[in-house]
Amino acid sequence: MVETGSADSPEEVAALTAVAVERHCAAAIDAAGPSCVAVKPQLACFERLGAPGWSALANVVAAARAVGLLVLADGKRGDVPVTAAAYAQALVGETPGPFGTVPGLGADAFTANPLLGRDSLEPLISAAASAGAGCFLLVRTSNPGAAEVQDTGTPPLHERLASIVDELGRSHVGSSGLSSVGAVVGATRPDLLARLRDLMPHAIFLLPGVGAQGGTVESLAAAFAPHPAAALVTASRSIVNAWSERGGEPAVAAAYAASELRDAAWSASQVASRAV
Amino acid sequence: MVETGSADSPEEVAALTAVAVERHCAAAIDAAGPSCVAVKPQLACFERLGAPGWSALANVVAAARAVGLLVLADGKRGDVPVTAAAYAQALVGETPGPFGTVPGLGADAFTANPLLGRDSLEPLISAAASAGAGCFLLVRTSNPGAAEVQDTGTPPLHERLASIVDELGRSHVGSSGLSSVGAVVGATRPDLLARLRDLMPHAIFLLPGVGAQGGTVESLAAAFAPHPAAALVTASRSIVNAWSERGGEPAVAAAYAASELRDAAWSASQVASRAV
Repeated sequence: MVETGSADSPEEVAALTAVAVERHCAAAIDAAGPSCVAVKPQLACFERLGAPGWSALANVVAAARAVGLLVLADGKRGDVPVTAAAYAQALVGETPGPFGTVPGLGADAFTANPLLGRDSLEPLISAAASAGAGCFLLVRTSNPGAAEVQDTGTPPLHERLASIVDELGRSHVGSSGLSSVGAVVGATRPDLLARLRDLMPHAIFLLPGVGAQGGTVESLAAAFAPHPAAALVTASRSIVNAWSERGGEPAVAAAYAASELRDAAWSASQVASRAV
Repeated sequence: MVETGSADSPEEVAALTAVAVERHCAAAIDAAGPSCVAVKPQLACFERLGAPGWSALANVVAAARAVGLLVLADGKRGDVPVTAAAYAQALVGETPGPFGTVPGLGADAFTANPLLGRDSLEPLISAAASAGAGCFLLVRTSNPGAAEVQDTGTPPLHERLASIVDELGRSHVGSSGLSSVGAVVGATRPDLLARLRDLMPHAIFLLPGVGAQGGTVESLAAAFAPHPAAALVTASRSIVNAWSERGGEPAVAAAYAASELRDAAWSASQVASRAV
């Protein structure tokens, strides 16, 4: 006897859930997209749905690009060089094979973890450069536990990582003065921004931690100092869950939260450029 | 005009390639599996084939478990706590949703990157413990570039990471005296093993770097000191590509290379236990 309404196979459940996630992302892009330059899909949230999740991810990438948004694949990958090259194929490249070439995700940028050192980063950066894409390396993340690892040593590890970002990025600086090798710097530690900006004058800073994690945009002006496009403020839960604090329709609340964040980021960038 | 033999769509090419990868892995499991305790699929090599790649990965996991092998998902994930929890769902857990629960990969263990600190590792370790699975944290990787980041500081970063592995693993020590929180320690730096073993007496060491990367099993005895099962020697290219150096049928060459490696690992573990 099959119970009505509970007989879906795991494959069917995964497929239905992936479609729901895809629609949720499409709604978020519709609502918040007009205030954004990029979307940052969190790969973990798609991976946990298996193959249907990766199909949904590919569709979300396509939907974002269709409305003119950049796509920043947030997977924080990092591995030995031969494997890093495979991650690069997955994110911004393609994979040749006996049946033809398999296209990758086609992201405009991605995040990467530099713990394995320079040789592990070169295949990622080189593939990004070939694709006209960018790579953001973790320097100082936004979570409380980051301090125990990233702030230890003399100089602190985050300064060593910043030097690697700067050195690897020097040969990828465009006419704007900005490099395609950027840095993830948590908005939860604005006191570190000026020093990190000194160490990485050409890097675009990706600044997570605003909103749900407690950071504020107003404190981020130093990140924008070299150029109004020298920093990207990212927010996720504070936009898609804006309705839970603000009330009203989720889409309207998300659109409003994104618009406020855009205005705040713009102000911060203008404060910075007036100071220069 | 369509050229004969080149009209496959990207989706068809990805699907054909993923099936070929799956068959390759099945052949490797058939050939080398009898000498192994686990397979270590490298997630990057499946991800680069998109959704069909993830289906192939799920099938490889099932094939390995069907012949009694453990599965160690090698993805080196690491992210802020909320995202780490999603990676844990993908690797060893499941994802509840409105349509039912989506099962994860069902791995027996996985690798993780500790750069983001203890709070980023706790969701992974806790999910692994709930699933009866293990987690291997990067401590000192096998690539040449590792030194620049992992060996800097006083004490060197790899010793700090080793202390984190030990502390997080203490509450997960089983009756064998080994913990489900292990450490990735490259076989390319055997001179570090004794010190790292002192710092992590309960951790199972996952030892990559033998074979293609230049490490030898004979130098790894210190890793086995606490228990004959206290270390796992991993090899990939030196097994699946064994035919290119040894000649003969690829499957026979792989089986022979795996059998040699098993014997060498067994000898190393016996040397260690005689020394204790």
